[in-house]
Amino acid sequence: MSGLLTDIDHVGIAVEDLDAAVAHYQRTLGLDPVHREVVPDQGVEEVLFHVGSSFVQLLGALGSDTPVGKFLAKHGPGLHHIGYRVSDVAEALERLKANGVPLIDEVPRDGPRGTTIAFVHPKGFDGVLVELVQGNEAT
Amino acid sequence: MSGLLTDIDHVGIAVEDLDAAVAHYQRTLGLDPVHREVVPDQGVEEVLFHVGSSFVQLLGALGSDTPVGKFLAKHGPGLHHIGYRVSDVAEALERLKANGVPLIDEVPRDGPRGTTIAFVHPKGFDGVLVELVQGNEAT
Repeated sequence: MSGLLTDIDHVGIAVEDLDAAVAHYQRTLGLDPVHREVVPDQGVEEVLFHVGSSFVQLLGALGSDTPVGKFLAKHGPGLHHIGYRVSDVAEALERLKANGVPLIDEVPRDGPRGTTIAFVHPKGFDGVLVELVQGNEAT
Repeated sequence: MSGLLTDIDHVGIAVEDLDAAVAHYQRTLGLDPVHREVVPDQGVEEVLFHVGSSFVQLLGALGSDTPVGKFLAKHGPGLHHIGYRVSDVAEALERLKANGVPLIDEVPRDGPRGTTIAFVHPKGFDGVLVELVQGNEAT
């Protein structure tokens, strides 16, 4: 079959102190944030930086009982998930489902910055939490 | 200062069974491997897939006493590191060092597929192991 993924949309990184991390990325890497958004249904505040045709996404937890809050308590800060860009999330979910890949979201839902997204279960890809992202590309 | 990173070169994923993971990525995502290499000094065998202008890199450990072998024993399979593309690794290391970012490699070294690389200490970026990569771009 043809490839399902058109690009890496973003790499999501869980941080303890979002403002401090943003300032650190600005100072050490010369990156300026291009987007900041509170995403209540994911329990995070996210900041995006352009890196080439992708984003680096810093994630602060909105509380200790959120998925990212629990991740931070268990693992400490670090790589949290990878977001792959696809042309059609609904079609991608169907293809993954047909191939027996376990999903978190059975149907697409609204994501931040006007995107349509769905999460795939980490059991589906060797422990990697995968997000499918459609729309609002970095380039 | 201007941005140090030109793109995401790759996302490195530690897996328990490299052949099985490669077959799974092929079957479920329609990705075909574009490169496979044993990298003795890193204790890994790596397989690369093109995803847009970046690579997804699957990493199998060459033994349990290697960095990826220890990672697998401690965390299980999952996201291992992020490789950022830079135009000049030596210059990037100087700039990071001048900004107090702790390095693993003080000077650039030869990487797989003809690249020049250096690793930055995870303490430098909120627990994220960062690799700087120069040369041999995906596009």
